[in-house]
Amino acid sequence: MSSSLRVALVQDRDRGSVDANLTRIEQQVAQAAAAGVRLVLLQELHNGAYFCQHQDVAEFDRAEAIPGPSSERLSALAAVHNVVLVASLFERRAAGLYHNTAVVFDADGRIAGRYRKMHIPDDPGFMEKFYFTPGDLGFEPIDTAVGRLGVLVCWDQWYPEAARLMALAGADLLLYPTAIGWDPRDESAEKLRQQDAWVISQRGHAVANGLPVLSCNRVGFEADPTGLGAGIQFWGSSFVAGPQGELLARAGDSDDELLIADVDLQRSENVRRIWPFLRDRRIDAYGDLTRRFRLP
Amino acid sequence: MSSSLRVALVQDRDRGSVDANLTRIEQQVAQAAAAGVRLVLLQELHNGAYFCQHQDVAEFDRAEAIPGPSSERLSALAAVHNVVLVASLFERRAAGLYHNTAVVFDADGRIAGRYRKMHIPDDPGFMEKFYFTPGDLGFEPIDTAVGRLGVLVCWDQWYPEAARLMALAGADLLLYPTAIGWDPRDESAEKLRQQDAWVISQRGHAVANGLPVLSCNRVGFEADPTGLGAGIQFWGSSFVAGPQGELLARAGDSDDELLIADVDLQRSENVRRIWPFLRDRRIDAYGDLTRRFRLP
Repeated sequence: MSSSLRVALVQDRDRGSVDANLTRIEQQVAQAAAAGVRLVLLQELHNGAYFCQHQDVAEFDRAEAIPGPSSERLSALAAVHNVVLVASLFERRAAGLYHNTAVVFDADGRIAGRYRKMHIPDDPGFMEKFYFTPGDLGFEPIDTAVGRLGVLVCWDQWYPEAARLMALAGADLLLYPTAIGWDPRDESAEKLRQQDAWVISQRGHAVANGLPVLSCNRVGFEADPTGLGAGIQFWGSSFVAGPQGELLARAGDSDDELLIADVDLQRSENVRRIWPFLRDRRIDAYGDLTRRFRLP
Repeated sequence: MSSSLRVALVQDRDRGSVDANLTRIEQQVAQAAAAGVRLVLLQELHNGAYFCQHQDVAEFDRAEAIPGPSSERLSALAAVHNVVLVASLFERRAAGLYHNTAVVFDADGRIAGRYRKMHIPDDPGFMEKFYFTPGDLGFEPIDTAVGRLGVLVCWDQWYPEAARLMALAGADLLLYPTAIGWDPRDESAEKLRQQDAWVISQRGHAVANGLPVLSCNRVGFEADPTGLGAGIQFWGSSFVAGPQGELLARAGDSDDELLIADVDLQRSENVRRIWPFLRDRRIDAYGDLTRRFRLP
């Protein structure tokens, strides 16, 4: 296996329907494959609107079984182009039991594995605890034709524990489908701090673990269906970072974009030799990481 | 207690002797105190050269008991100016038992506590495992007149686990005395990647934990005493970041500098309300963080 891997991130706005979104994804993946891409990352919940701005039982109609109609269409897409495809679906597991699930399709189209979002936010504009049962599959990377993928989802990106557990399980890359944006009422300085913190947090996981990080974010404005909130301006800025956290490619913050980059997997080996952080972890002193807080 | 705290970082080069270094520190702390500073952070092993470029038993002569001559001088300095002072000393605990120890002097000059560096590097130019026994005091913040200080040292800065454990124990600030620099033989692109990774890693701890981070680094060139290596060009760039990882102040990379900044501790409370990461940690699924690796 060559150490160079061409990857693509499909940063997009919601195009109004499952079919319109998947059609657009099919076009973008075809374009990526024609450019030599072997791994494609889609944004979080790419089938439709980011529906978690309100709590409405009707939104559960968006969920699908996996396998199901969307996963079958994505499976065929991966197989046709011989690419590994990391998708993000609203999974219906049973009546009253739903997950925010990343599905990894191997280059032959088969489902290589799935990751159910472990950390679930619940904040104004992002009321996910209503919709998504916290994942119960743990932090387990998924083996594919292009390597072992440490797939995490959105809110997970703020947790160094999640990235570390993926690295300790041998992940070759960390991948984040995500949907994050601004409250339009915030001041521009606060907006910049938030966006910068989001990039830093994930580049920090690359540094701490000596691994490339791919993060694919949604773009465009989506109104609050209740009319009570100001909506969300998703900030795009999807990026690819190398194992020292160095930015290899970064998309803009306002338009859809097919972001392509070459990742050199040999660099992880080299960087970990000069910065052997895994060697010196004080595992004898980390026990309290499983506590909620170390004070009463 | 006001939520605004004026802090100072004393970024310096080695001035050739313990007395010359401590005299300079006394001048800088006096200047900081006159400017209203209440918390001062010194760089790692500020008493002399960064001696870990080679292995020489004679270097153990630099070590001192704590309390000892240097700590008594620093204690008096803190008391005279009524500042909390975070120092970094080569601690002689017993014959053949030495630590890289941060000592915190409270504003009345008393030793508020000490932290013994937990993660010890050992790499070309940084042969610390020869000199420093890994810390055995764990990750415990230290209470002072200006708040609860999560003091860590240099190599610790690459470990999200250390920062998290301090935050979980109620730290109000994270502080890193450090001594890191370039191998002059590296190309400039590699130098920039390393320096950037160092900043990102620590700003990432600020983001993940919703805490300000202070990092005080050495500056100047120090030759390898053996003549075999190319020496180290310490890159300075000491900085203060807020709880979203935002840079509040940053020193240059080539000169000594007294870096002063105001930290608003109330912002940690506010930031943690909009980004309540501590609420959603999956402590049920973090057990493997105490493993060396999750594969055989």
